[in-house]
Amino acid sequence: MEEVDLVNASGRVLAEDVVALYDYPPFDRSEVDGYAVLSSDVAGVDEERPAVLRAVGSVGIGEVPKFSLSSGECAEVSTGSILPRGADAVVPVEYTKRVGDLVYVYRPVAPGENVAQAGSDVLAGDVLLTRGTVLGPVELALLASSGIARVRVYRRVRVGIVSIGDELVEPGRGLELGKVFDTNSYYLYSSVRELGAEPVLYGIVGDDEVALERVLRRALEECDIVITSGGTSAGVGDVTYRVVERLSGGVLLFHGLKVRPGKPTFAAVAGGKLIVGLPGFPLSQMMIFNVLVRPILARLLGYTEPRTTVRATLAERVLGYLGVTRLVPVVLRRGPGGYVAYPLSYRSGSTSVLQVADGFVRVEGSVPFIEEGAEVEVFRLHTKWLADLVAIGSHDYLLSEVFRELSRSFTVKYVPVGSLAGLEAVAKGVADLGGVHVLDAESGEYNVPVVRKLGYGDRVALIAGYTREVGLAIARGNPKGIKGLRDLLREDVVFVNRTRYSGIRVLVDTYLERLAQELGITFEELTRRIRGYYTEARTHSGVALSVLSGRADVGVTLRYVAVRYGLDFIPLASERFDIAVNIQSLKKREVKLLIDYLRSDNFKKLVERFPGYRLAERTGELVVI
Amino acid sequence: MEEVDLVNASGRVLAEDVVALYDYPPFDRSEVDGYAVLSSDVAGVDEERPAVLRAVGSVGIGEVPKFSLSSGECAEVSTGSILPRGADAVVPVEYTKRVGDLVYVYRPVAPGENVAQAGSDVLAGDVLLTRGTVLGPVELALLASSGIARVRVYRRVRVGIVSIGDELVEPGRGLELGKVFDTNSYYLYSSVRELGAEPVLYGIVGDDEVALERVLRRALEECDIVITSGGTSAGVGDVTYRVVERLSGGVLLFHGLKVRPGKPTFAAVAGGKLIVGLPGFPLSQMMIFNVLVRPILARLLGYTEPRTTVRATLAERVLGYLGVTRLVPVVLRRGPGGYVAYPLSYRSGSTSVLQVADGFVRVEGSVPFIEEGAEVEVFRLHTKWLADLVAIGSHDYLLSEVFRELSRSFTVKYVPVGSLAGLEAVAKGVADLGGVHVLDAESGEYNVPVVRKLGYGDRVALIAGYTREVGLAIARGNPKGIKGLRDLLREDVVFVNRTRYSGIRVLVDTYLERLAQELGITFEELTRRIRGYYTEARTHSGVALSVLSGRADVGVTLRYVAVRYGLDFIPLASERFDIAVNIQSLKKREVKLLIDYLRSDNFKKLVERFPGYRLAERTGELVVI
Repeated sequence: MEEVDLVNASGRVLAEDVVALYDYPPFDRSEVDGYAVLSSDVAGVDEERPAVLRAVGSVGIGEVPKFSLSSGECAEVSTGSILPRGADAVVPVEYTKRVGDLVYVYRPVAPGENVAQAGSDVLAGDVLLTRGTVLGPVELALLASSGIARVRVYRRVRVGIVSIGDELVEPGRGLELGKVFDTNSYYLYSSVRELGAEPVLYGIVGDDEVALERVLRRALEECDIVITSGGTSAGVGDVTYRVVERLSGGVLLFHGLKVRPGKPTFAAVAGGKLIVGLPGFPLSQMMIFNVLVRPILARLLGYTEPRTTVRATLAERVLGYLGVTRLVPVVLRRGPGGYVAYPLSYRSGSTSVLQVADGFVRVEGSVPFIEEGAEVEVFRLHTKWLADLVAIGSHDYLLSEVFRELSRSFTVKYVPVGSLAGLEAVAKGVADLGGVHVLDAESGEYNVPVVRKLGYGDRVALIAGYTREVGLAIARGNPKGIKGLRDLLREDVVFVNRTRYSGIRVLVDTYLERLAQELGITFEELTRRIRGYYTEARTHSGVALSVLSGRADVGVTLRYVAVRYGLDFIPLASERFDIAVNIQSLKKREVKLLIDYLRSDNFKKLVERFPGYRLAERTGELVVI
Repeated sequence: MEEVDLVNASGRVLAEDVVALYDYPPFDRSEVDGYAVLSSDVAGVDEERPAVLRAVGSVGIGEVPKFSLSSGECAEVSTGSILPRGADAVVPVEYTKRVGDLVYVYRPVAPGENVAQAGSDVLAGDVLLTRGTVLGPVELALLASSGIARVRVYRRVRVGIVSIGDELVEPGRGLELGKVFDTNSYYLYSSVRELGAEPVLYGIVGDDEVALERVLRRALEECDIVITSGGTSAGVGDVTYRVVERLSGGVLLFHGLKVRPGKPTFAAVAGGKLIVGLPGFPLSQMMIFNVLVRPILARLLGYTEPRTTVRATLAERVLGYLGVTRLVPVVLRRGPGGYVAYPLSYRSGSTSVLQVADGFVRVEGSVPFIEEGAEVEVFRLHTKWLADLVAIGSHDYLLSEVFRELSRSFTVKYVPVGSLAGLEAVAKGVADLGGVHVLDAESGEYNVPVVRKLGYGDRVALIAGYTREVGLAIARGNPKGIKGLRDLLREDVVFVNRTRYSGIRVLVDTYLERLAQELGITFEELTRRIRGYYTEARTHSGVALSVLSGRADVGVTLRYVAVRYGLDFIPLASERFDIAVNIQSLKKREVKLLIDYLRSDNFKKLVERFPGYRLAERTGELVVI
């Protein structure tokens, strides 16, 4: 327990009931600007027959009136003024007219009208807030209104955070083969702080009993509770339990939960303090943290977490695991009849799922499956409000800017993945829409064929987008005098390619095949003669960076990117970028606003600011497949 | 824009798109504990006909395998291990048996099964998070997983906060007549911080042009935006607009909104910075802050606030004001068909309404009323999750403790008001339940008659509560030898009374009337002879404090309170304290848990720890009226 002033009390938890020090309002006060009167003086008046009263003074806000009113008199008052003695009501200024000292009153008031009686709102001694209340803006206002400047709050619980594993590396360092970055420390740090506790990071400990024991001892000494993650798998390198049991008074409470993911979770007590061991995979760790650790931390902080679940309709059947509780991450969407939860399939170590998941559903071990359409309880993974529009698909610079423009009217959850992953999300309804640019090699057409071939035609429509110019990016001034793709064959020219399956790579290979035919050689012979054909940049900007840094002389990228990096550019083709949209989402206000925007002059102007981008023939029109 | 490390990035807003630095996973890795195999070696095996492979090594987590697998070989791997060269799948350990160097495999695996391919989740160069993302625990985890240790975020906007008014006093100071405590500074400080901006308090300025100009100039110099509250009324003492227009480049954008409450709101620009003037009354200030200022602040911080409204069914008709948008505070409850909004009636300067209101509804000026049952949009006034149970009613020490006990199972919003205000809230459904102790003078019975007389019998039931002993509290050792109420007539005894309409006062007057009859004098004659009859304490503990401090010799209060303050106690009566409950809420889990608890042995033990409290005959049983 400690005492803090109001300015430092945000997010803290009251350690005792707080009692009002003063009545509120502290005196009979006017609730309007107008004239304090004796209500009996204005009984029965109206527009035709006003009362005429003599103004004998005025009471400014914060002023103590030095006079009292007798019948026939009135006094000017402001909202918040003390009512002068004798007066029992206030006539709002709108219903009066003043001529010199005389005030005409055109409306009657009842006794007490427009007057807040002293103590009518809060009485001194009333319990204002009870112990265990989390102090937010409203609570602080309430305390201030009663003159309370300092409050006793619970001490902030200190939470030690330890990441365990030989494979872990701190972000910002280089990544050797076999290693992964420590993710859980940062999730836990931020979550613990959000809850109002004080996180203490102890960094990464390898699977080394001596080091782990040392760190745990220190964390237990300095903190009220310790959370570890990783190092709990049943396989190679598991040392945590042994260490925990060796700590003074160390007792393993449980080791292993009948929960998937989350099986290797453990809890122990050592030195009278709790140690919770979470799984190492980020999503597993998050789900178990939310189910198991959050409520404990809230308790330690002195409050009860309100139910952080929402009821939702399950969009797709989910299977259970016999005898084991299954936790299934979901995307939460607002539907016409309430929330809808879309189960996500993901790989257990996935981090990209973190970007998409809003929460998770429990499937009990006694249940073989939960049927599509069933009502389920969704545990939230974050406390953000849901975005109005969910966009999952290919990343594009112009589309990003469009969302930014529209974000004045609504919020967008924009998850950049590939075209194909985006299309699947849109088809399932997980996303409202997503950017797509997939060339169908057979027809040479963009986007429509792929939607059709994937069998999404009944669920997905396309909003006609725009084209983006693709071509050769070369150093400014073109020092090597590159004129076209043929120059890739030159001995003194180094190329930088894109990753297989990327849209640009497909295009590059199509051009090179044509070139091979022209030259009368095989594709393989051709590519073997191109220096750097096997050097693959991951992104548009990766190509530009290679050229800018001189590692390569030429690469294929967007004109927009070449310009942004100050490179010269030789156009090769234009690719079509459309927006796939779930037909259910076509009714949404946000989608209509997007379509309106794409058709607007503002968008035309925006496109002009994006080199290499051009409107399509029917930008903003709907292409039903 | 500034660069921060992950630990300091919570709540900040990304100032640029962030691109993944590494593939994730960064290598082909096992997703389970088990044996890395060539899937072709285990095709078609089952429990009867296992494959028998030779274990040639093991790969610990974080280790780089120094061998590769050939047909007939396998290697022990852990979840997260690098897959050794040659292997293309992993058999979970549960489906294997190891005997020396030999491993029996009882289940086939497909190529790639239980293996996460390098980059299958995130590719280096992928856009991980876009500009304008607010960084929470999940976003930080995502950044860390890609090795990003520092991010560029928007600078925290500095928000100057100024409270204007001669009547304002800082909490913690004494309150002279005519003054009220500054409330808005603390609400704004905490709200601005919650939004991720940096609040700067400039304190209270009187209605003094020179002082106000000085403070505004300083605030404009030091901050990015300035919010004032109060000092905007059209009545006496209004100086703010004049000052704002005198500032360099000061232009009043608007003065007066067609919104009630909120009419005196203004906005101005000076020195290229925005000044917003909010009304002075706390609730008005809060509503206008949420409607008008929040979205602007979010914009300045670089993000768009997600829609913070919820759809709800209106529980009661609300009237509009012609030509003026009306903001009506509501309580929000979770109903079976979604949210229900209960409009609150309140006085414009009320602060107690702050404890109850969850949000507010807009009634447009073109609408004469919104009908009960209509769907409305509710703007939230706080971001807390709704409590599971809402209790509004009389304050009682034991009931507080009961809620605290039950808060392990659910959350309670406990708003202490009087019995009658509580009963109204329960009858309307604003609250699930509330404590009530009202003596019916006619019948001498508690609680049931009042519910019946108020016409709430069809909507409100009572849960039988307990009794609390009421009597005379006197200084320890009883120095004045007080034996009963007759001693109040003594010249040397000073009494402390309770406020009119309080339950205790009703009881005191009933006893004194009886005494007057016995003495053959009128009630007025009697009370005139009691020293201190007109000194009114507001609460149970107020009485105890008066006696403890020697200001009075005797007063009527609860035995529990007398004991808590170390006073002697002479019992007079027992009053009945029941719990009024809305019959709709009887179905709720939380109400059932409360009833169970009241009937439990744990409650019996709790009551024993509360001096003067006793179980009723049927504690926890339902009294239908």
